[in-house]
Amino acid sequence: MSSSFGTLLKVSTFGESHCKGVGAILDGCPPGMPLTESDIQPQLDRRRPGQSRLTTDRQEADQVTLFSGVENGVTLGTPIGMMVYNKDQRPGDYREMRKIPRPSHADYTYQMKYGIRASSGGGRSSARETIGRVAAGAVAEKILRLAYGVEILAWVSAVNTIAAGDINLHTITRERVDANLIRCPDVEAAARMEALVAEVKEAKDSVGGIITCVCRNVPAGWGEPVFDKLEARLAHAMLSIPATKGFEIGSGFAGTRLRGSAHNDPFRAADGRLGTVTNNSGGIQGGIANGEPIVFRVAFKPPATIGLPQETVDFDGNPVSLEAKGRHDPCVVPRAVPIVETMAALVLADCALRQKAIMGLRNLRQTQQPAGA
Amino acid sequence: MSSSFGTLLKVSTFGESHCKGVGAILDGCPPGMPLTESDIQPQLDRRRPGQSRLTTDRQEADQVTLFSGVENGVTLGTPIGMMVYNKDQRPGDYREMRKIPRPSHADYTYQMKYGIRASSGGGRSSARETIGRVAAGAVAEKILRLAYGVEILAWVSAVNTIAAGDINLHTITRERVDANLIRCPDVEAAARMEALVAEVKEAKDSVGGIITCVCRNVPAGWGEPVFDKLEARLAHAMLSIPATKGFEIGSGFAGTRLRGSAHNDPFRAADGRLGTVTNNSGGIQGGIANGEPIVFRVAFKPPATIGLPQETVDFDGNPVSLEAKGRHDPCVVPRAVPIVETMAALVLADCALRQKAIMGLRNLRQTQQPAGA
Amino acid sequence: MSSSFGTLLKVSTFGESHCKGVGAILDGCPPGMPLTESDIQPQLDRRRPGQSRLTTDRQEADQVTLFSGVENGVTLGTPIGMMVYNKDQRPGDYREMRKIPRPSHADYTYQMKYGIRASSGGGRSSARETIGRVAAGAVAEKILRLAYGVEILAWVSAVNTIAAGDINLHTITRERVDANLIRCPDVEAAARMEALVAEVKEAKDSVGGIITCVCRNVPAGWGEPVFDKLEARLAHAMLSIPATKGFEIGSGFAGTRLRGSAHNDPFRAADGRLGTVTNNSGGIQGGIANGEPIVFRVAFKPPATIGLPQETVDFDGNPVSLEAKGRHDPCVVPRAVPIVETMAALVLADCALRQKAIMGLRNLRQTQQPAGA
Amino acid sequence: MSSSFGTLLKVSTFGESHCKGVGAILDGCPPGMPLTESDIQPQLDRRRPGQSRLTTDRQEADQVTLFSGVENGVTLGTPIGMMVYNKDQRPGDYREMRKIPRPSHADYTYQMKYGIRASSGGGRSSARETIGRVAAGAVAEKILRLAYGVEILAWVSAVNTIAAGDINLHTITRERVDANLIRCPDVEAAARMEALVAEVKEAKDSVGGIITCVCRNVPAGWGEPVFDKLEARLAHAMLSIPATKGFEIGSGFAGTRLRGSAHNDPFRAADGRLGTVTNNSGGIQGGIANGEPIVFRVAFKPPATIGLPQETVDFDGNPVSLEAKGRHDPCVVPRAVPIVETMAALVLADCALRQKAIMGLRNLRQTQQPAGA
Repeated sequence: MSSSFGTLLKVSTFGESHCKGVGAILDGCPPGMPLTESDIQPQLDRRRPGQSRLTTDRQEADQVTLFSGVENGVTLGTPIGMMVYNKDQRPGDYREMRKIPRPSHADYTYQMKYGIRASSGGGRSSARETIGRVAAGAVAEKILRLAYGVEILAWVSAVNTIAAGDINLHTITRERVDANLIRCPDVEAAARMEALVAEVKEAKDSVGGIITCVCRNVPAGWGEPVFDKLEARLAHAMLSIPATKGFEIGSGFAGTRLRGSAHNDPFRAADGRLGTVTNNSGGIQGGIANGEPIVFRVAFKPPATIGLPQETVDFDGNPVSLEAKGRHDPCVVPRAVPIVETMAALVLADCALRQKAIMGLRNLRQTQQPAGA
Repeated sequence: MSSSFGTLLKVSTFGESHCKGVGAILDGCPPGMPLTESDIQPQLDRRRPGQSRLTTDRQEADQVTLFSGVENGVTLGTPIGMMVYNKDQRPGDYREMRKIPRPSHADYTYQMKYGIRASSGGGRSSARETIGRVAAGAVAEKILRLAYGVEILAWVSAVNTIAAGDINLHTITRERVDANLIRCPDVEAAARMEALVAEVKEAKDSVGGIITCVCRNVPAGWGEPVFDKLEARLAHAMLSIPATKGFEIGSGFAGTRLRGSAHNDPFRAADGRLGTVTNNSGGIQGGIANGEPIVFRVAFKPPATIGLPQETVDFDGNPVSLEAKGRHDPCVVPRAVPIVETMAALVLADCALRQKAIMGLRNLRQTQQPAGA
Repeated sequence: MSSSFGTLLKVSTFGESHCKGVGAILDGCPPGMPLTESDIQPQLDRRRPGQSRLTTDRQEADQVTLFSGVENGVTLGTPIGMMVYNKDQRPGDYREMRKIPRPSHADYTYQMKYGIRASSGGGRSSARETIGRVAAGAVAEKILRLAYGVEILAWVSAVNTIAAGDINLHTITRERVDANLIRCPDVEAAARMEALVAEVKEAKDSVGGIITCVCRNVPAGWGEPVFDKLEARLAHAMLSIPATKGFEIGSGFAGTRLRGSAHNDPFRAADGRLGTVTNNSGGIQGGIANGEPIVFRVAFKPPATIGLPQETVDFDGNPVSLEAKGRHDPCVVPRAVPIVETMAALVLADCALRQKAIMGLRNLRQTQQPAGA
Repeated sequence: MSSSFGTLLKVSTFGESHCKGVGAILDGCPPGMPLTESDIQPQLDRRRPGQSRLTTDRQEADQVTLFSGVENGVTLGTPIGMMVYNKDQRPGDYREMRKIPRPSHADYTYQMKYGIRASSGGGRSSARETIGRVAAGAVAEKILRLAYGVEILAWVSAVNTIAAGDINLHTITRERVDANLIRCPDVEAAARMEALVAEVKEAKDSVGGIITCVCRNVPAGWGEPVFDKLEARLAHAMLSIPATKGFEIGSGFAGTRLRGSAHNDPFRAADGRLGTVTNNSGGIQGGIANGEPIVFRVAFKPPATIGLPQETVDFDGNPVSLEAKGRHDPCVVPRAVPIVETMAALVLADCALRQKAIMGLRNLRQTQQPAGA
């Protein structure tokens, strides 16, 4: 039951890297919304392997099929089933891993947990599991866009030691993010990042990076106190993505080096509501959105699969030198951009539904309201 | 329902900063375990206000009372109720906040969410809410210690720009952490941190910091794949603590600057199981513990309540200058150490129970087992 | 975690029969609703022991205290804590049960489940646990009444073999139910029921009965498909009440003896919506309310505690003759009436919140709505 | 999110009656268990339409495909995906229902809830939704059988006014249940039931019935107190099956007519544990299994789809005479037998996993256990 996420809008993913297919069930999607595969495919295309020379050579079209919950292009309010079939499987590439747990992969831990594991690829720990998230999250993005004009935009803000310069959170667009292969809107940094990734790929090594994400037009009031704080749900969502090692909201770790007098975000009048002069809070105060842009950053480690030889041991403890034969990404962050966006969308759309429930019944003071449902 | 956390071991907290009391219900605690208030009080004492000159002057004894789930000093397996009464209330201190949302507090967002908010103090967003977590988490710590010898140790690793030196994760003890008021085991850094906090308190300002936490003796296999990855649950737990801005596991954000060949943790034979030579993974691979120490860091912002005047606006958008009259902490990290430890314990004890369920029924191949329950 | 119930409106109860107190936390109550102890106490008074000569002689005032979630008589949207202290404890009455599992009680099963059990009274299996439900459910009743004019009315429709005649579901009132001690609005049957209960009490025996419940003014659309069908949630709620053995909705078991042509409920035009000519469906079709009165019946077994000697065995299997010394109810149904009503209210108020979430976001066809929360 | 059921073993179903397919994801199945389609197909075959002259003429092979969670015939501990494709669709049969809500169907209530509904067939309210439950529940049955020898057997105990005689709960087998088309092990009653159903089919009408279910070899200790009582979960599961109107456990409604002295189940020594002399409790006391056979009964109404003309109104309130053209079952109980069994299995297997968690950590008294997971 750890493959489900969400309270009112719940995604459940399924599928291993080398079974018949992977996908998701999205339960709780509002009824009456136009929806076809073409709403979902673009984010899958941004995630799919083989999309550019910077990514793995594994070729998967990753075409999604909607198999339930939609009729005549409109959602029914019932569980939306989404399936992507696995095609380019090469189990032979994984023969040696049957005896050797790959360093910093999940082979050893799955074996310890379950006493069994998928014989090739990472099984559920494979990045292919994220296909279901991206498909479901693309639906969540559409809910948010239609109902609130919410815009969720992520981009690569660092690769290894190369950091992008400041990006304007209010004007950045998906077009600008996708203008280069590395998905970094700082064009100069992007060129250096791409060169580094190409070099690392050639060297059979890998590099990590950082993704920044902004969520605009999120209404004040979303998010729940205490354990379901909006930043806590976002952190949960982001750290559930394979290869992530860190999350920070607003000022993040750098904020620990400021004094309160510099860190606090004073209020200002803004369009009939209150805004803040600065945004060290990252758009969230006390776990609840304040109407400012929500900004967070996610750290991705360098991919564990590398072609360079590694001195490690097999399951019996015997020393071995391991050189990965399988195709792999030298750097995951370009392909992780849509994963971050869609996971954020799943969190926010769930918040939207929960807040609708509260708004619909708050301030009950009359003896009886008209009997609307 | 956002005040509950956990799957098989579930904590539900209740209480505002200025109501009759705060506390928690812990449901799912294993039956037959010795438990009295004396198991819980030490962590509450480490959290309580007024414990030293570095903390707020608000005085609360924060004595816990067990009111259900325990009989004759032994748990019954039923919900354990824990209550702490609020004593030192000064609602007058908060009079002005009725009209003015305090910068970087949750006054504005609670008002937007609920259309109402507690008239004094932060209500549920107050740090007093964490009393329930600490009480429940102290029980979780006992479960983990008795059943597995799990040790959870957190300490202050940075205050503002003062960072502690390297701490030995294998030998650090709670005694050494508590040897100074700031709870930093690097004695030299601790002295400078304490001096800084005293200076900041005098200046009516505040500072943030970082807490590092290690969990030792966690068995390989704990944690669930996909959405309930162990690091995702830890991130969720930590970002649900008031004033947190970031979370990183293992190599964290710094790990993004390494190449895969340097970041990967090769395996080695270790005491009949496999260990890893390095621990950039932070004790978790694929969301599942690998038996190495789990290490993570949490960023805390400088407290929002400061005595210095702040130029902001009231709820109607009129400019005001706000000087907080209430007592407050110049730096929360010393008191947050037990909060981090107990939240980690709640996450891990839940994992322990979930793994017991899996271990109990894996590898069903016979036609019929003896009918044990 | 089995002590919690509900999705958006969640009740968690705590407390054993002989610990310091029992109560509940209600999380998810809409903010801004007037609420004081006086909204809750009436249903507790209808449930409390010692209220009449037909019930147990154990005397408990069962005065409720609100200790969180409410300020100045108005709900904050935060968890509402409700506590009732246990007073009239006589552990000595239960001395013999330490060695002898009482027939048709939960002594044996708790011992088998937990390896330990409360040493006196039924612990969590005691009817005192229902105090928390009644207190929380009384709040749910108020939500439903204020927001929708929903009326929930239960009454005793049978005691042993004495059945009440037909009751008009549209006109029955709580006053008429409470006009006699047995809470049966058929006055003639009520007199015979009371005489039977008095006789049975004298004979140190016990009798069971049936409670019928009607929920009026429930809007069409409440309830969820598939696993959270409204009748499924009601059945779950009712069978979780101690001593219940059966549940039926609408035509129930008797409906199995009708043909479809007689059982189907044809539609008719009614006040701008559709009603049904008959109501064999009991107000629910496909798990969703259709706007007609919801009608269900709950079977309660005769109380297990009786003064007559019972030939049974102790925990070691040795034959013993057991005569209960403790005070007990000869018939629980009069006191169970408010329990049935408040559990139904908890189910329905949760449905109301869930339906608000759906109504708030259905039919998203525009490019962008005004940014309401 | 109402399409999921279970805590540690969670089933999520998807699919409408006339979309591409229906099925289920089962999350939490223990790893290392042999599993192929052949473990699942037999219960689907017992449920499928067109299996005999007593059922609907709609022909569906209902062949299940496992598409995830299993490798080389063994479960991986990951979500098991199961799909059945819809084949024999005749949307034309449903043309008239676009304007007319069918009496006692869910057309009207889905429309009121969602503002939209599937244009043909019942969508999610169709009996085809139960395919997912049966597939998932067949896996649960295998878990229970392999691990505990649990046997779950249901049969038709009444059709309309024809009731079967007493069936021996200890010796009844699935073979005897399936020995006739109506699935009633009382051969004489079965013959009369079959004749009645044939007559009713000819008359274009329908009849209801009752299914009795026994669960043998359930270990004492399964089930949780308070809100997740075993009978409450069973009632929830059963009332979530389409067309059900009632549930009773053990003595049920008839038990309300007994005195406590006759209803109580005295204990007796039995094979090193305690058994009960009688079983009015139906195998459950205080929500927890006591080791005796669990016995319950479920009421099914006559199917709502009948060929006879019905005087009703269309969505606009205009009177119409409706004659169903679609194929339909004159009586659902024979096909509902595997649905009842598999839903019971899902409830019990979830209990088994939850109890393993408790058993694994109860009685923690030592300072430290050996570090098993």
